[in-house]
Amino acid sequence: MGCIMMPFINTRSNSPTCRATLFVAGMLAAAIGFESRVAAQGLDDLQTPEEPLVLKDRGSFFVGGKTVDQTSVELGSFGPDDRITVGQMYVEYMIPDKAANLPVVMVHGATLSGKSYDTTPDGRMGWFEYFVRQSYPVYVVDQVGRARSGFNQAVFNNVHEGLTPADEQRRIFRLGDQFGAWTNFRFGPEPGEAHPDTQFPVDAVDELSRQSIPDLNVWSPTPNPTSDALASLAGQLEGAVLVSHSQSGPFPLDAALADPQGIRGAVLLEPGTCKSDSYSDTQIEALAEVPVLVVFGDYLDNPTGVPGPTWQERFDNCQSFISRLNAANGNAEMLYPPEEGIDGNSHMIMQDKNNLQIADLVMDWIDETVGDERGQ
Amino acid sequence: MGCIMMPFINTRSNSPTCRATLFVAGMLAAAIGFESRVAAQGLDDLQTPEEPLVLKDRGSFFVGGKTVDQTSVELGSFGPDDRITVGQMYVEYMIPDKAANLPVVMVHGATLSGKSYDTTPDGRMGWFEYFVRQSYPVYVVDQVGRARSGFNQAVFNNVHEGLTPADEQRRIFRLGDQFGAWTNFRFGPEPGEAHPDTQFPVDAVDELSRQSIPDLNVWSPTPNPTSDALASLAGQLEGAVLVSHSQSGPFPLDAALADPQGIRGAVLLEPGTCKSDSYSDTQIEALAEVPVLVVFGDYLDNPTGVPGPTWQERFDNCQSFISRLNAANGNAEMLYPPEEGIDGNSHMIMQDKNNLQIADLVMDWIDETVGDERGQ
Repeated sequence: MGCIMMPFINTRSNSPTCRATLFVAGMLAAAIGFESRVAAQGLDDLQTPEEPLVLKDRGSFFVGGKTVDQTSVELGSFGPDDRITVGQMYVEYMIPDKAANLPVVMVHGATLSGKSYDTTPDGRMGWFEYFVRQSYPVYVVDQVGRARSGFNQAVFNNVHEGLTPADEQRRIFRLGDQFGAWTNFRFGPEPGEAHPDTQFPVDAVDELSRQSIPDLNVWSPTPNPTSDALASLAGQLEGAVLVSHSQSGPFPLDAALADPQGIRGAVLLEPGTCKSDSYSDTQIEALAEVPVLVVFGDYLDNPTGVPGPTWQERFDNCQSFISRLNAANGNAEMLYPPEEGIDGNSHMIMQDKNNLQIADLVMDWIDETVGDERGQ
Repeated sequence: MGCIMMPFINTRSNSPTCRATLFVAGMLAAAIGFESRVAAQGLDDLQTPEEPLVLKDRGSFFVGGKTVDQTSVELGSFGPDDRITVGQMYVEYMIPDKAANLPVVMVHGATLSGKSYDTTPDGRMGWFEYFVRQSYPVYVVDQVGRARSGFNQAVFNNVHEGLTPADEQRRIFRLGDQFGAWTNFRFGPEPGEAHPDTQFPVDAVDELSRQSIPDLNVWSPTPNPTSDALASLAGQLEGAVLVSHSQSGPFPLDAALADPQGIRGAVLLEPGTCKSDSYSDTQIEALAEVPVLVVFGDYLDNPTGVPGPTWQERFDNCQSFISRLNAANGNAEMLYPPEEGIDGNSHMIMQDKNNLQIADLVMDWIDETVGDERGQ
């Protein structure tokens, strides 16, 4: 039987050999098609799938949040004292017409938003839509305090008015393009210099820069409120797999400690940490109830160009966490693509040129380990 | 022929009589179904359409933005000096499988995001999806400086470090629930007291509060950079109707002055101003090339509870603007639903209980005035 040659769609219905062939074809297309890309993405750069997307439902809503009273100054000195909501989490979702699999919830990393999982910088399909096309209901969130979830602006206005010392207004974090992203995300050893086999679409790296937004996470308590919101969402879904990335790496674990009821599995993509040194034995016993997959890309020894642990150290921390879970009769696993003969993946693995190949491996793990049907 | 009784779908394929019947049925359903609503929206509150949504394409991208070099302090004192992008505009889009109409671009108002046009506070279909179901390709944006478009965080970090005086950090605006929204948006004369025939789903008003996010527009130059981004987007689309709301009311006009090439029509929903007193005669002549529809809800004399013009004054300003355009051989019109026997609409007209009825009227105007086919 031949391979089905529909870009972006149904690669999972092909045999492993077909998948590999399609993958190589995709890489060639990428190499040919993307080299003349201009820096500013236009509508013409967006690739249209060959098959329509059929949705049973789609939309957006919020989870969590609380109302607080604020002064006129805290609200920006326009109207009277009033009340607002803070701490809510924005969720957008798509449910495929023939949903057959467990819901998947996707959470982004530092100085990014849910956009991470949508159309890639070079205009290809992201994981949000791809998982839906593979029959998973998908819920993509903006972390509490970011993007469409908003943040609490009160202190900034109090500082503006001189009512609060400036240093009570904590820092706002933003990853820069050359070090925060290029070297830290392991596109290459030096800004502008790519690994020859990098999977990141480096010709469209300026589009990743456009995705970057201010990050107020340093203001958040520990554990991060997004963890509680994720636990609540998974509970409402009556079973979901939580997918996290980078900064949000351990959020699914903290969510499971807060309320494990709805959390059927956790996929940690390039987690900033697995908190192996932080969790107590009792916590590890609780976490051992949740199947866990950790995914890291290639070039772990790439110089990050920023302070903090190396990616090899983060990988080792997660290996140690996996060992602790499995010693407690857990079901935890590392997916390290270079061991499968897949080289060159970056920190932005859900945007890499082989992003759908990695997605297939994650879905295989979900199907085999967590169960491929709701209620199974 | 009977009415097609599919909630949310195909009401436009019915006769006017059927539309009215469905509308009343919808109101009864709303009155019965929403009264026991709890304040915190859950998944169960989201209403699923009876017919699947079939999309040719969907996704997200950015328009505009420029790269700037920033110091380590400006980036939050984590890594070295680096470069970021500021001023970009986030766009999410859905293209129906059988797109037959002109693309429509939707822009939100103050302290809100593109979420305004998605699932309503009480879980009904928003304009984003409804227009797509009526064969319009739809592009929903987050204004520059808001939500997934991000903002420039540099000055906040400089103030934190004492490098910049606190008052150079301008105010961040947030509309409060009781006055900024309830009275100002004309749900009723006093906070918590609704007009008996209000169309806003007031039992779900806490969900509107969750949509509210900090607004940095006071930082923006005039005209607002979102206007330029809208002009660029309309140009890339080779023809689009721009729909604005409240704060963004005049953005389509300023966009047309910046570059009219792609702007086939402008629909101003409850504009904060039509800038009738600001535009020169030369500008009015240029704007007269663009068909314009202005839409206002009911209760224009409701006390706003906040400073600034009354809604009657805003309405009058727009009437004057319409007169100026038409005197210059323009094609401008006011849609004031009470004149059509439709009472109780609020400032959040795209979220009101009769939001699809208002959408139908807007689509009728687009079809009749702008042309119902691309290139027509």
